[in-house]
Amino acid sequence: MAAESISTLPTWKKLEIHQGEISRVLLNDLFANNPKRGIDFSIEEAPLFIDYSKQPVNHDTINLLVELAEARGLRAKIEDLFNGQVINRSENRPALHHALRSKTDHQVFVEEKNVHSLVVSELEHMEAFIKLLHSGEIKGFTGKSINTLVNIGIGGSDLGPRLATQALHAFADGTIQVHFVANIDKQEIDAVLERVDAEQTLFILASKSFTSLETITNANTARDWLARNGAENPCNQILAVTGKPDAAKAYGIRKENIFMIWDWVGGRYSLWSAIGLPVAAAIGINRFRDLLSGAEKMDHHFRETSFDQNIPVMLGLLDVWHINFFGSETLAIIPYDQSLALLPDYLSQLLMESNGKQVKQSGEFVDYNTGAIIWGGIGSNCQHAFMQLLHQGTHHIPAEFLVASRANDNNIEYQRLLFSSCIAQGEALMHGNQGHEGISNDQLIKGNHPSITIIYESMTPETLGMLLAMYEHRTFVQACIWGINPFDQWGVELGKKIALDISATIEGNSVIREFDSSTRQLIDRFSKA
Amino acid sequence: MAAESISTLPTWKKLEIHQGEISRVLLNDLFANNPKRGIDFSIEEAPLFIDYSKQPVNHDTINLLVELAEARGLRAKIEDLFNGQVINRSENRPALHHALRSKTDHQVFVEEKNVHSLVVSELEHMEAFIKLLHSGEIKGFTGKSINTLVNIGIGGSDLGPRLATQALHAFADGTIQVHFVANIDKQEIDAVLERVDAEQTLFILASKSFTSLETITNANTARDWLARNGAENPCNQILAVTGKPDAAKAYGIRKENIFMIWDWVGGRYSLWSAIGLPVAAAIGINRFRDLLSGAEKMDHHFRETSFDQNIPVMLGLLDVWHINFFGSETLAIIPYDQSLALLPDYLSQLLMESNGKQVKQSGEFVDYNTGAIIWGGIGSNCQHAFMQLLHQGTHHIPAEFLVASRANDNNIEYQRLLFSSCIAQGEALMHGNQGHEGISNDQLIKGNHPSITIIYESMTPETLGMLLAMYEHRTFVQACIWGINPFDQWGVELGKKIALDISATIEGNSVIREFDSSTRQLIDRFSKA
Repeated sequence: MAAESISTLPTWKKLEIHQGEISRVLLNDLFANNPKRGIDFSIEEAPLFIDYSKQPVNHDTINLLVELAEARGLRAKIEDLFNGQVINRSENRPALHHALRSKTDHQVFVEEKNVHSLVVSELEHMEAFIKLLHSGEIKGFTGKSINTLVNIGIGGSDLGPRLATQALHAFADGTIQVHFVANIDKQEIDAVLERVDAEQTLFILASKSFTSLETITNANTARDWLARNGAENPCNQILAVTGKPDAAKAYGIRKENIFMIWDWVGGRYSLWSAIGLPVAAAIGINRFRDLLSGAEKMDHHFRETSFDQNIPVMLGLLDVWHINFFGSETLAIIPYDQSLALLPDYLSQLLMESNGKQVKQSGEFVDYNTGAIIWGGIGSNCQHAFMQLLHQGTHHIPAEFLVASRANDNNIEYQRLLFSSCIAQGEALMHGNQGHEGISNDQLIKGNHPSITIIYESMTPETLGMLLAMYEHRTFVQACIWGINPFDQWGVELGKKIALDISATIEGNSVIREFDSSTRQLIDRFSKA
Repeated sequence: MAAESISTLPTWKKLEIHQGEISRVLLNDLFANNPKRGIDFSIEEAPLFIDYSKQPVNHDTINLLVELAEARGLRAKIEDLFNGQVINRSENRPALHHALRSKTDHQVFVEEKNVHSLVVSELEHMEAFIKLLHSGEIKGFTGKSINTLVNIGIGGSDLGPRLATQALHAFADGTIQVHFVANIDKQEIDAVLERVDAEQTLFILASKSFTSLETITNANTARDWLARNGAENPCNQILAVTGKPDAAKAYGIRKENIFMIWDWVGGRYSLWSAIGLPVAAAIGINRFRDLLSGAEKMDHHFRETSFDQNIPVMLGLLDVWHINFFGSETLAIIPYDQSLALLPDYLSQLLMESNGKQVKQSGEFVDYNTGAIIWGGIGSNCQHAFMQLLHQGTHHIPAEFLVASRANDNNIEYQRLLFSSCIAQGEALMHGNQGHEGISNDQLIKGNHPSITIIYESMTPETLGMLLAMYEHRTFVQACIWGINPFDQWGVELGKKIALDISATIEGNSVIREFDSSTRQLIDRFSKA
């Protein structure tokens, strides 16, 4: 199946024809023709409610998209995912992020080790550590209790815990302050070190490979700073979360302070592992387990629900509908929730690093578009920033709104205005103002812009777990339709290698190689400065 | 001229033909064919260095693009801008953001008032205030000196000062702490109020119209919080930056605490006015004046330099080249500088709110694409997040890198790695790894992706001023080519109006009107919660 192009599938052809038909009907008219449209094109899996009725679809579209999923063998691929088949073929591994949150032993083995046992044991390791930390029994080099944790990691070792810690701030009791450092820009770590106390701060060195240039450089800076501030054995105040425990030991980190992650979980899918340690430190281990339970709930939904009622399946198929049939290049993610300010960044990694690919699992190149550019920002701020372009610009941009129907502090006044602003954007994008009185062309909003609205009751650990697992599975659905591997990321290697060449050239250690005249003159700018 | 479509211009046709030719040549080959290419396609205006040689252009392209600019009357339009002509036609106003930073009286009058005199006088007002603030003479309600400033504003009253305060943190002496609140999400203002002391905190209510729902709601919350914390006259600790001084007075703000902005400066172009007050508070008035000087330097460059050596002109034309001839929908802004973390957000407002339009100044609809979607994020973080898609995805995405050749703290080690990582991405995007040994299809990076690299010596107030004015003028250049008005934003009004309808419906005050079945069920979710 993989050898033929999806664009030759009969269902694909039918979808192309159908797109030509439905794109001639206005969204407004779809609503006028079906008074039950709102309900017909919504899915509820409490506490999530997904309304995709403002999408350019009717019942025929849904049937065809489901037919496409079936033709692409999605059902079997979902089973392969959960059964631990080697679906990350280029790296010859299964993808077992779902095992990190499963309470059931599914008898999946990797290198003869039971994955569930590994997960349970590492979660117990985390639990023991978090309990000691919260009871003040973890001490710094002067005997004072640790009250601050600085996570040093980048990409998947940063975005997930950073997002979750911020999203769940209402559940943090303040026992442990958590900070994050990712970039190889000294300004970032300096700003954090200025604010924390060496006697009471633990660092987490989070790196699966234990070789990320950024992370090791920052960890060295932290270690030296601890030493400069009086720590005789600074590595005693550094934890590691890594797949290379021997390298961590060699770095000087104590055995009990090394938390394991595994090759069968990609960085961008790893929040559920010990990579989530900063989150557990902030909100406590029980609430971290609630986060896992929420994700597990979405796993069950994904695996067990018929496609037309299956949230990740429908959302992934709608992405394909926009990207491959309407030609959209982007998806705008717009949470009306300050606590989800990092969601667009998090999803830009999850979706773009996973599905920014042009090679199929079969090794051939695709002849159709794959992953979209994920961008966005929080509402209502974006209404005063980029929303102008969605209303009156010239590009086809699907928008996705997220909002809580209840604030965690139960305030009504603000939440009503925030919620109303969110729902209003979806309506404005769809209806526009054609036919309104006194509207000049300058003011005309043609409308007919598609959006999805996701409502959750309030931002809780369980809800966040469900949401993020939903986006993981949606990513998987896209990849299955396109026949690509969402679990590797070969494209990032070349830049790393060239960076080291350039750095060595600047240092003047050796003439590594010739550079083009642009790269050469840019390099010289550094040396001249 | 405006009445004919640009797509019928002879130069446009020539560019279409030329695009067909040059897109068959690899960027690598353009370099191989011209050893001076790096220099030929770079522009220096110290301390900025712009290398656009990794763009799909040759000398013919530049000549044709300049010809297009001439055909569109760009030269005269630039003069109209600086001479204060009514170029914002839909609002019947000039656009005079440049006057905010001009040391010269250009004898521009609006409603018989000399604009330069107004600007000078308000800048002196700011200066007097900042000096009192820094010397501790501004006191809170218990007589303690003010040491904290909270800016309450949204969109243009938020993004500019927020960006500049963060970008120039190295120039802040810490006398005054500055915080920002924008969103109508109570979590944001609550997080700030938890961290500040009512006795020593001033609030700025920044709203040109003095009616922004978000800003007035947050200002009320601040006022009530001051009162709850013991301030008898809480409005004495609130400043206003507004175009409606009477409304500010009616709110209870003292006359001397009201700073003026004017209709002839759009919100997204207003950093240079009293909207910059938080920046001046953080870095001092002299450095704020350096920021203005940097912008003024770019104004002179823009007005006086021939088009082929003119940074905003060339960058604006290259945007048109990508959007209208290569069909790109987006521009990725990637600063390798933690201090510019907010630049993608700032530019998404500047460019998308300005040029996300489909109506020409003539009132007709465009038949070509206009403003691109601006997105991005900081490097090197993005290498571990979304860069995979640029290297191996299927979309044509121009990338723009920014990096300092020197760190403000003069560290070499980190800055070399950061700088090398930045330059490496441009090289990797262009060269790819075709022909490298042992590369499987999974690992293949085809290359030939365009980028621009902007190098500045270090992040200073003057440099930031130049950079931001450069983007303002680039926005103007795009708009001139497309024949649209970059200074209005009618598209944002409808959503605001609908939000109030929905809010009133939720409150149950009245049946405002019918809603479609989607909007209706979403509204009901709030009421049910």
